[in-house]
Amino acid sequence: MLVFGHMNPDTDTIVSAIAYADLASKRGFEAKAVAQGEVNPESAFVLDKFGLTAPEVVTSVAGQKVAIVDTTELTQLPADIAEAEVLAVTDHHKLGDLSTANPLEMWVWPAGCTCTVLKNMYDFYGVEVPKGIAGAMLCAILSDTVMFKSVTCTPADKKAVEELAKIAGVSEPMDLGMEMFKVKSAVDGTPMRDLVFRDYKDFDMGGHGVGIGQLEVVDLDILKPYVDGLYEEIQKVKEEKGHHTIMLMLTDIMKEGTEMLYVSDDKDVFKKSFGIEAGDRSFWLQGCMSRKKQVVPDFQSKAFA
Amino acid sequence: MLVFGHMNPDTDTIVSAIAYADLASKRGFEAKAVAQGEVNPESAFVLDKFGLTAPEVVTSVAGQKVAIVDTTELTQLPADIAEAEVLAVTDHHKLGDLSTANPLEMWVWPAGCTCTVLKNMYDFYGVEVPKGIAGAMLCAILSDTVMFKSVTCTPADKKAVEELAKIAGVSEPMDLGMEMFKVKSAVDGTPMRDLVFRDYKDFDMGGHGVGIGQLEVVDLDILKPYVDGLYEEIQKVKEEKGHHTIMLMLTDIMKEGTEMLYVSDDKDVFKKSFGIEAGDRSFWLQGCMSRKKQVVPDFQSKAFA
Repeated sequence: MLVFGHMNPDTDTIVSAIAYADLASKRGFEAKAVAQGEVNPESAFVLDKFGLTAPEVVTSVAGQKVAIVDTTELTQLPADIAEAEVLAVTDHHKLGDLSTANPLEMWVWPAGCTCTVLKNMYDFYGVEVPKGIAGAMLCAILSDTVMFKSVTCTPADKKAVEELAKIAGVSEPMDLGMEMFKVKSAVDGTPMRDLVFRDYKDFDMGGHGVGIGQLEVVDLDILKPYVDGLYEEIQKVKEEKGHHTIMLMLTDIMKEGTEMLYVSDDKDVFKKSFGIEAGDRSFWLQGCMSRKKQVVPDFQSKAFA
Repeated sequence: MLVFGHMNPDTDTIVSAIAYADLASKRGFEAKAVAQGEVNPESAFVLDKFGLTAPEVVTSVAGQKVAIVDTTELTQLPADIAEAEVLAVTDHHKLGDLSTANPLEMWVWPAGCTCTVLKNMYDFYGVEVPKGIAGAMLCAILSDTVMFKSVTCTPADKKAVEELAKIAGVSEPMDLGMEMFKVKSAVDGTPMRDLVFRDYKDFDMGGHGVGIGQLEVVDLDILKPYVDGLYEEIQKVKEEKGHHTIMLMLTDIMKEGTEMLYVSDDKDVFKKSFGIEAGDRSFWLQGCMSRKKQVVPDFQSKAFA
């Protein structure tokens, strides 16, 4: 069984795949964590910190038994996923358009992070979380919940971090989180394309292609010199994909808001979705830190209504 | 929050809705079990046996918060489900075409019955199953697993029945199961239409409409006098729905097999799906007792391939 998450893997997708494969193998299944792409700098920092290895890159899964983590959107899964047998889904997002031919095991919670669900699955099945995996899971939760500041954060996420910190022997999880976000904020020398796709997802919203990327930094000033380059890049991405709209969330985790850089066929969609008059190429959303909870639902239900 | 299952509710759908609403209310949510139709004779027997009330019939859910049990197929949900907010799904079927705008809580297991998943959810949340609900859940599991004979039955189903029997004070669950199946087998005086729709589901299989009903009896001889009438009725249903194929599974739970009554635009679909030369209006499938595991997957993947 191959275990993997979404395209452009983030730390939650990488660590969830590793944790799910570990738990599944301890429950008696043969399971291997893989990923649809190389790990990003944040994930590389986390894996290195806790002595874990980056999963092998696999982009075709026809004929395989698979367990999916961290998504149920076909646009974020391998193109030949319909030819695989999906045995399990573990996730914390809205339910997407994946469907299966057979009954399966799904654990999906409205929590801040798939690793939070996985911590509860370890407990449910009475399996101990290995020390290194516990440390990485803790980082994934701090990353996805922006150190508990995101509206997606739930009491279950905080509880999981507390328990995982004990297992991992991490005495100051928030210090570790800050160290991780500084790594994540580093952009020097990174090609614009890589920045746009660092945490990027495509959606099909009632027939309209929509791409939404996100960069989280400890201070938006870090990105100032790159905004022109990023804007040019999302214009190219829009053209290549033939999408209606591309958004790139430039999220300041200390100011707790997002400068939304965009290109769109129709900037009225932002008025309809967020009640905001978009500027020529960007607008500010105070309090917005979560693509999943503060961007996708409003955009999906209102932009093309 | 309204809690309900699929159209043409069976005992699992009815009892799962009641149990989910009970568990949710004890977790602090306002929740009410409803159903998309009247209960069938088997469910009426079970509810009466354990002092429970049949859920109110509700067929429109626009603007409501809802929790769905026992299905994720849009064809089996209210027509306006897209205008409801789906907060939770508890199921044991393949993943269908439901999708949501927001993150949700999903417990889906490849078990024989949704009530088996619910028993584990009660345990997970540390909530005691009320005596009457425990008895009804036990019956739902015996019904869905055909008293543990179905290939869908898992060790988790047997364990749940054992534990629920203790809570409900049922000393001989199999005797109760047999009593229930005798009620289910009774067909005298029931209109043909009601028999076809007693446990019937529509599927969209790659653009082809397919309807599959099932009647489970303790002895197929009970149905002999009704086969002509049932055949005429599924011809009418096919015409009304404009479907490609209607199948009606006449399942003998003691002989452990199914006489499949059918009408179809192309009887080659049965050769492709089950490797069988269909007779003029029916064929026998030895060992076949489960629509979900022994009919739908093969038909879905092979009939129109």
